[in-house]
Amino acid sequence: MQLTKFTDLSLRVLMYLTQHDRLQPVTINEIAQQFSVPRNHLIKVVTRLNKLGWVFAMRGRHGGLRLGLEANQLKLGNIIFELENTSTLIDCGKPPCALKGQCHLKEILDDALNVFYAHMNTFSLADVVNQQTQSAVISMHQRYQVFLSTQAT
Amino acid sequence: MQLTKFTDLSLRVLMYLTQHDRLQPVTINEIAQQFSVPRNHLIKVVTRLNKLGWVFAMRGRHGGLRLGLEANQLKLGNIIFELENTSTLIDCGKPPCALKGQCHLKEILDDALNVFYAHMNTFSLADVVNQQTQSAVISMHQRYQVFLSTQAT
Repeated sequence: MQLTKFTDLSLRVLMYLTQHDRLQPVTINEIAQQFSVPRNHLIKVVTRLNKLGWVFAMRGRHGGLRLGLEANQLKLGNIIFELENTSTLIDCGKPPCALKGQCHLKEILDDALNVFYAHMNTFSLADVVNQQTQSAVISMHQRYQVFLSTQAT
Repeated sequence: MQLTKFTDLSLRVLMYLTQHDRLQPVTINEIAQQFSVPRNHLIKVVTRLNKLGWVFAMRGRHGGLRLGLEANQLKLGNIIFELENTSTLIDCGKPPCALKGQCHLKEILDDALNVFYAHMNTFSLADVVNQQTQSAVISMHQRYQVFLSTQAT
């Protein structure tokens, strides 16, 4: 029982972007390099976050990525619920269970998952990020700016 | 975020065995057939359940599988916790996260997972099984006995 890699990476992207106001424009290339993930994979993540209205992508030379909402408006339970492709912890159809619809397991698991999401919704993206996170992102970004300047020369 | 197939199958096996007192000895072959799963996969599941003391395997001609504890002693949270290989919902090391140890995400997720397990522990295996489950297992078992008798002739 783990979050998908897609959700995990989405959360990393959202955390990074909580600092967008304090950074030069953040690009997909930058985030891909910071988290050592394939650019194509990241594009899928950012596209999804953009569709959800959680990330804005500004085109152009000075464009970049930024959060579409304040970090305290993004509840963690809702983020995970939207990004995970499944809303249940078991699939009674894969492989088909001979007891499907004849036991309380799915119902009990569904309830517990709702309890999990309700608990997660008492926290927002802002609660995930502390002073250390802020400093770490800013340092990472500054190193990337130095890297870019060496590439340009 | 889903239970592993291993946990899912383990829960199906445990549900089936709640009725062991009312059935002829239940074999691995029987359960493999009932849930359409490969015998080798099921052997791994039963071996694990046996090591945990939740399933007893009696050898010999009249041997078979039975629960090692009363169904109401097997708490669902504990069952899932033991069978899932992970105790966290994200792995900050795969791929290595540049923010590892510098944010509150893992801590918040770990807490929410504990809330999930605590909720699941308010239910036992006995709560999963209702009258319908009992009848379904007994019918499945009877059909298997008929199948066996046709094989023997």
